[in-house]
Amino acid sequence: MDQITVRAPATIANVVCGYDCLGLALEHPFDEITVRRSRSGITISHHDDFGLPTEPEKNVAGVALRAMLDAGGIDGGMEIEITKHIKPGSGLGSSAASSCGAVVAANRLLGDRYSKLELVEFVMQGEMVASGARHADNVAPCMFGGMTLVRSTEPMDIVTLAHPSIFATVIHPQIEIKTSDARSMLPQTVPLKDATRQWANLGAFVAAASQGDLRLLGRSMEDVVVEPARKALIPKFDEVKEASLAAGALGGGISGSGPAMFMLCPDAETASKVSEAMRLVYEPTGIDFKLYCSPIAGSGARII
Amino acid sequence: MDQITVRAPATIANVVCGYDCLGLALEHPFDEITVRRSRSGITISHHDDFGLPTEPEKNVAGVALRAMLDAGGIDGGMEIEITKHIKPGSGLGSSAASSCGAVVAANRLLGDRYSKLELVEFVMQGEMVASGARHADNVAPCMFGGMTLVRSTEPMDIVTLAHPSIFATVIHPQIEIKTSDARSMLPQTVPLKDATRQWANLGAFVAAASQGDLRLLGRSMEDVVVEPARKALIPKFDEVKEASLAAGALGGGISGSGPAMFMLCPDAETASKVSEAMRLVYEPTGIDFKLYCSPIAGSGARII
Repeated sequence: MDQITVRAPATIANVVCGYDCLGLALEHPFDEITVRRSRSGITISHHDDFGLPTEPEKNVAGVALRAMLDAGGIDGGMEIEITKHIKPGSGLGSSAASSCGAVVAANRLLGDRYSKLELVEFVMQGEMVASGARHADNVAPCMFGGMTLVRSTEPMDIVTLAHPSIFATVIHPQIEIKTSDARSMLPQTVPLKDATRQWANLGAFVAAASQGDLRLLGRSMEDVVVEPARKALIPKFDEVKEASLAAGALGGGISGSGPAMFMLCPDAETASKVSEAMRLVYEPTGIDFKLYCSPIAGSGARII
Repeated sequence: MDQITVRAPATIANVVCGYDCLGLALEHPFDEITVRRSRSGITISHHDDFGLPTEPEKNVAGVALRAMLDAGGIDGGMEIEITKHIKPGSGLGSSAASSCGAVVAANRLLGDRYSKLELVEFVMQGEMVASGARHADNVAPCMFGGMTLVRSTEPMDIVTLAHPSIFATVIHPQIEIKTSDARSMLPQTVPLKDATRQWANLGAFVAAASQGDLRLLGRSMEDVVVEPARKALIPKFDEVKEASLAAGALGGGISGSGPAMFMLCPDAETASKVSEAMRLVYEPTGIDFKLYCSPIAGSGARII
């Protein structure tokens, strides 16, 4: 076994009502990460044109892998080859995909020495580099697949949620919003009544997902805390949402810290209609954009 | 059909991590409410010594029933006979039990004209009298039984949660805390990071309940917003909690706005041990107290 290639999925964090804890994995887009053992050190190469750093201490995958090698006292090095399809700064968990992919591949090379939860801890080191904070809301679904809820990051406590077989439609306007900027727009405090409304929605969302109650799932996708602060960063946010709901989407909003927006849909046909509705809103803007329709992925980063 | 008697259960609101939305029903204690049709007006009598008002416009059951009769344009009156076992001001949903019991009984006398959700709306009128606010976190479990989550009160949106077969142990120190006082102690705003932690816990609680994951259920019963503010009102709060957890409780805290405290337990035997642990903490205080062990009730207010 000389090299391992992993497909690591794009992820949607927050999912409207679960800021900083809820997330889900998509089947596509995804990144591909190949890892080989080498004599020493970590080297990184990219087969994409995003211009990400290749110095391992500046690249999230390098930082995550370094944490793993150091924790295990592992001799020798690793080469990481990354082909990104998830654009950095999209709000689709690009950094989580790079680093989850790298540690999942490296872990197989090491004989599956670490559990997924342990791998998450290594990846968190990379996320600290990407966003300056210990957030796992993209990492958890990227590693475990499906829908996940991060109850706590210290200690790490990740819950895999039961969910119906639904689809997500994503529009990614090709503008950049840095996670750190998006975070700085957030209120530091929240009125108790808004916080209460938010947690009632999240509780209802989790119940709806486990019961397969799609109408309740849609009603629960309401965000009175983060979306009002952040949506100004995203052109045509309200129009995209309105057109998507009219086309049959259950609900949706900002993906992670944006600028990508997503809508959950009951089936592939509706997801496709919603995609068309999004296109009609965005084409007149002159802003370049990408559209994705994807089922929620059953698995997270996986060896191919 | 001359008269109908309903048994209306005590309820635990908030359930630690779900302030103002989560609730559950107990099999006991419960109130018994008998309603008869009469010529005109609403009359109320009490077979208990709590000294509650019998003027229908000051009694929560009278207010709820009045709302129901007015909504339906119903001729004639009703007599309500209440035997309370749930002490007012206990934090165990005493007012919700009175008014749910009254409207469920009256509804049967009227040929089940209203749905449970419609009955909840009438009961909310009574709750406005009791607490000055539109809260349904006791009303929902009292009406529907089991574990409930109130996603929204305008419009009313109540979710019945799947939950494992577990028990609650309750200690009710015989001191009074008014709901309005307990509410005034709450912070008006919450740091976003605390709010996030709270909603992650509530999401995890709902997932744990649906998956029957008792350890996760216990870990999720953490309250960084309300409990720190309110626990000072309750003598020996920390000691009761600590002794209960040591005796095998999954987790617990303040029931509603207190002073009752509750602990969820995996089985009847543990619930009994927890009850004994609570007793040992409270006996030396000289404060009178009552203890209850109960399964979570499968049904809410029901005709007997």
